[in-house]
Amino acid sequence: MSRFWSELVHGLSPYVPGEQPQIPGLVKLNTNESPFGPSPKAIEAIRAAAADTLRLYPDPQATQLREALAAYHEVSPEQVFVGNGSDEVLAHAFAALLKQPAPLLFPDVTYSFYPVYCRLLGIDYTTVPLDAGMRVRIDDYAGRPGPVIIANPNAPTGIALPSAEIARLAAARRDTAVVIDEAYVDFGAETAIPLIRDYPNLLVVQTMSKSRALAGLRVGYAIGDAALIEGLTRVKDSFNSYPLGRPAQAGAIASIEDEAHFQQARSVIMKNRADLTAALVRLGFEVLPSSANFVFARHPDHSGQALSAALRQRAVLVRHFTAPRIADYLRITIGSETELSRLTDALREVLAKNG
Amino acid sequence: MSRFWSELVHGLSPYVPGEQPQIPGLVKLNTNESPFGPSPKAIEAIRAAAADTLRLYPDPQATQLREALAAYHEVSPEQVFVGNGSDEVLAHAFAALLKQPAPLLFPDVTYSFYPVYCRLLGIDYTTVPLDAGMRVRIDDYAGRPGPVIIANPNAPTGIALPSAEIARLAAARRDTAVVIDEAYVDFGAETAIPLIRDYPNLLVVQTMSKSRALAGLRVGYAIGDAALIEGLTRVKDSFNSYPLGRPAQAGAIASIEDEAHFQQARSVIMKNRADLTAALVRLGFEVLPSSANFVFARHPDHSGQALSAALRQRAVLVRHFTAPRIADYLRITIGSETELSRLTDALREVLAKNG
Repeated sequence: MSRFWSELVHGLSPYVPGEQPQIPGLVKLNTNESPFGPSPKAIEAIRAAAADTLRLYPDPQATQLREALAAYHEVSPEQVFVGNGSDEVLAHAFAALLKQPAPLLFPDVTYSFYPVYCRLLGIDYTTVPLDAGMRVRIDDYAGRPGPVIIANPNAPTGIALPSAEIARLAAARRDTAVVIDEAYVDFGAETAIPLIRDYPNLLVVQTMSKSRALAGLRVGYAIGDAALIEGLTRVKDSFNSYPLGRPAQAGAIASIEDEAHFQQARSVIMKNRADLTAALVRLGFEVLPSSANFVFARHPDHSGQALSAALRQRAVLVRHFTAPRIADYLRITIGSETELSRLTDALREVLAKNG
Repeated sequence: MSRFWSELVHGLSPYVPGEQPQIPGLVKLNTNESPFGPSPKAIEAIRAAAADTLRLYPDPQATQLREALAAYHEVSPEQVFVGNGSDEVLAHAFAALLKQPAPLLFPDVTYSFYPVYCRLLGIDYTTVPLDAGMRVRIDDYAGRPGPVIIANPNAPTGIALPSAEIARLAAARRDTAVVIDEAYVDFGAETAIPLIRDYPNLLVVQTMSKSRALAGLRVGYAIGDAALIEGLTRVKDSFNSYPLGRPAQAGAIASIEDEAHFQQARSVIMKNRADLTAALVRLGFEVLPSSANFVFARHPDHSGQALSAALRQRAVLVRHFTAPRIADYLRITIGSETELSRLTDALREVLAKNG
């Protein structure tokens, strides 16, 4: 507390990201990072951008990157917004589109940054409970006037909705924005991007941090009708003209252009997810059906807190949340085969000891 | 305009950065970039950070970078905040410290992003006129209760206040924050950083974009009492957990550690500034006394608009502002000797033709 703070600061409850400890030999399955490196072409492009030209400001409109993303997703560059990770893109979307007279709606169990943005930006919100199977039910959003944000696949459950359900959500509220946070969409869910042609109220947010293994570079983007993108751009240009540096723009362009590397990495992660799910089920876990690069699982006989602590003692880090409805669960990132063996070995040991 | 925008978006007037055109052979003296590249050690560090480790999130607290900055400026890491360029640092300072019941005060002629932040964040402000010599007069801020932000050296005038004047400003308003934006301080002005020990209300903001030639990397920072820094951190952690990627953190650390390169570049720029000032005076310009990497100059017989347009026709870009009091002036970045010769040759030609 400080007398120099604004009233705003006193009311904040900042987001707490998964920890990034420096422990040698750690199996790090807590922040949904890729076990594989990014495209070698992205690495090469970042190296090439590390040059005397760093003395110059980057393109504030990130024109080439927006063109590359537009070509990839078969939209126009005016339908693409880029930012410093999808967290920044989301923050601008909250300010530009989701701050409305009617409360913003989102699931009770979802990305825990959403209520944090609401407090920062003075946005009133109402949470809509997931059903008993931890699923988003679109019908539960009917008859409520406010804008909506849904993560699809949802986090931390990993459960995805088909894009027909997203279309139904967007169609039912033509006068207010619907934001779909697709941070994890590349691991087996359907993107809503093709729907933006029919739904001018629909904004789709994606990131290069997960499926493109560029969490350390900070690039996220949004795709939607040009008018929505212009709203985001006006907020961005009132906040920071140049959110993406030259290395970030260069690396992101090269990543988008390396389709083979992208497809290879995501298919291995989906295979490892199937293997891990089977192994966890054999160990007695209940595993939600995941379309993400993590699984959300609970054991009938062991608390999430206890399992998470026991794994940590064995240098295996997973994410545990204390929020209601999910305190029993562990969120486990899909790592490499070796990492997942280390995890299942550790779990087997913990369960045997306490079972 | 879009029916999906928040009320907020409708009220914005985004900042317009200097243009970044792709014209071959252009002499670019419009955005205060360094004519010299960054430290070769920074380039090397960014290349080393372009690796498979990009799959991992960066340190959200940027601990090593804050330690390097703390060591350099002889403060503690708890007194250092880092962000995605000083524009982002300033945006967070406006939200955390400068949004107060009493209007924020800043000069009528200063960095034109300040009123843009105010509109974004709903901050009431009052401008305080520079004196007839285009100088900030600290006495003009007396007897007004609000927080203050001053760029020192001021932009676009380039005129600096001695740090004793900053101390007088901070001492006179012990109950509210004073932010000193030192984007250009390394070109001959006195930093207020040593004053933070005595003034817990004083926040000093610097950037790596100008004197460290890293405009393309996006790194800025603030130094002040730990309570002020905590306020900024709470806002940042409610907006974007990871504003600085791995290449940015690595490059910034290496830059701070290369004192020889830094001193060499700034001394050449200060020498070139003296030479350019003399050349402009010989051409009949009135040049304000600059402590920055640009000069602000006007010609008694030619409008700023006309000169700027004529220079542009000769592939020389300078910055011209249309705002009251400064429409007669050109803001000219201190380039290399070659660039400045191109500028003065072009000016000589323009003045002869129209003189």
